[in-house]
Amino acid sequence: MKKIMLLLCLFTLLGSQYAMSQRKTKYRAIYQLNSDDDKVIRNTLRNIKNALEDPRLQGKVTIELVAHGGGVTAYKKDQPYESLLQELQDKGVLLVECENTLRERKISKEELFPFIHYTPSGNGELIIKQKEGWSYIHP
Amino acid sequence: MKKIMLLLCLFTLLGSQYAMSQRKTKYRAIYQLNSDDDKVIRNTLRNIKNALEDPRLQGKVTIELVAHGGGVTAYKKDQPYESLLQELQDKGVLLVECENTLRERKISKEELFPFIHYTPSGNGELIIKQKEGWSYIHP
Amino acid sequence: MKKIMLLLCLFTLLGSQYAMSQRKTKYRAIYQLNSDDDKVIRNTLRNIKNALEDPRLQGKVTIELVAHGGGVTAYKKDQPYESLLQELQDKGVLLVECENTLRERKISKEELFPFIHYTPSGNGELIIKQKEGWSYIHP
Repeated sequence: MKKIMLLLCLFTLLGSQYAMSQRKTKYRAIYQLNSDDDKVIRNTLRNIKNALEDPRLQGKVTIELVAHGGGVTAYKKDQPYESLLQELQDKGVLLVECENTLRERKISKEELFPFIHYTPSGNGELIIKQKEGWSYIHP
Repeated sequence: MKKIMLLLCLFTLLGSQYAMSQRKTKYRAIYQLNSDDDKVIRNTLRNIKNALEDPRLQGKVTIELVAHGGGVTAYKKDQPYESLLQELQDKGVLLVECENTLRERKISKEELFPFIHYTPSGNGELIIKQKEGWSYIHP
Repeated sequence: MKKIMLLLCLFTLLGSQYAMSQRKTKYRAIYQLNSDDDKVIRNTLRNIKNALEDPRLQGKVTIELVAHGGGVTAYKKDQPYESLLQELQDKGVLLVECENTLRERKISKEELFPFIHYTPSGNGELIIKQKEGWSYIHP
């Protein structure tokens, strides 16, 4: 009986401490891109770079960029953002496109860079990730 | 003595598990609309619809749309958004207007659709709901 | 042995309750300003004022405004926002500028009002504060 109680206590304590350490050591941020405006696209990509290089976050932040609506423009092969995207991807940024947008705008995945990932809906992704503790930024 | 300790343990464990189950089963999102631009209004309403239909969220998400500033346009009877709003409301979306905006723009509640709800300030609502764990989306 | 177990239990319980009380009593919000558009700047400052005056938040909310990109305009001595900023600062709002932006735009701190604070990157600040439980608003 005592053993069970002790195990229960330890289990609970360790659980809380693990959760707390997770919360302290790792930052995660999800960026939204829903504009096809060249200035907004470039600002968003530069903002992500700045966040990665912030001395308080270096090596401690995971970033995902979710494009939906007009934001799909940034991921298209016929657009001039490949090297900027590649640079972010090399630093571990996950580049994600909304599949609803592809359907609505009749764009095939072949038109996007091969290193793009997909999510059923960009908005669902933003909701789910925030629920999991990710910070959200709308540039 | 042992009984008290055991109860304390169980209470703590159950508490954590209840909190964890709450966190897993239910998503809540608050959308902000502060523009009178027709494209932004329609995009916002479509984004909400897409989130409701995301296979990962279906039947598991509660959504509130808070309009303030120019966003009040979406709720006015003399504007063309009634059927789009009604469709969202039928799916459980709470449509909320900022009372500060009504005062600042001298708009009476009679000018808005009867199914609109009110909050003292749209910004306060966004702050409070995030604090309660709601995800936030600025379309 | 029993004493240790009891202490473990109490420690865990008190920890959870402290965390819960913290979460309930205090609202914190970080606003982002990344536009040099006069209307956006004035809307942002007015939105913050409205949040401070929301009856649900009065005396219970801490607000920080982070400017980056074009948002630096709001803090420049040669711009017309001094009295609006001063009013917010008198109410306890922390006014913060991104140092990356100053470097990128070759702006010196002497060009900004003396009551402005600084952060290595505006985006890093938005990520870190949300992680610490602050609500985020993009006006």
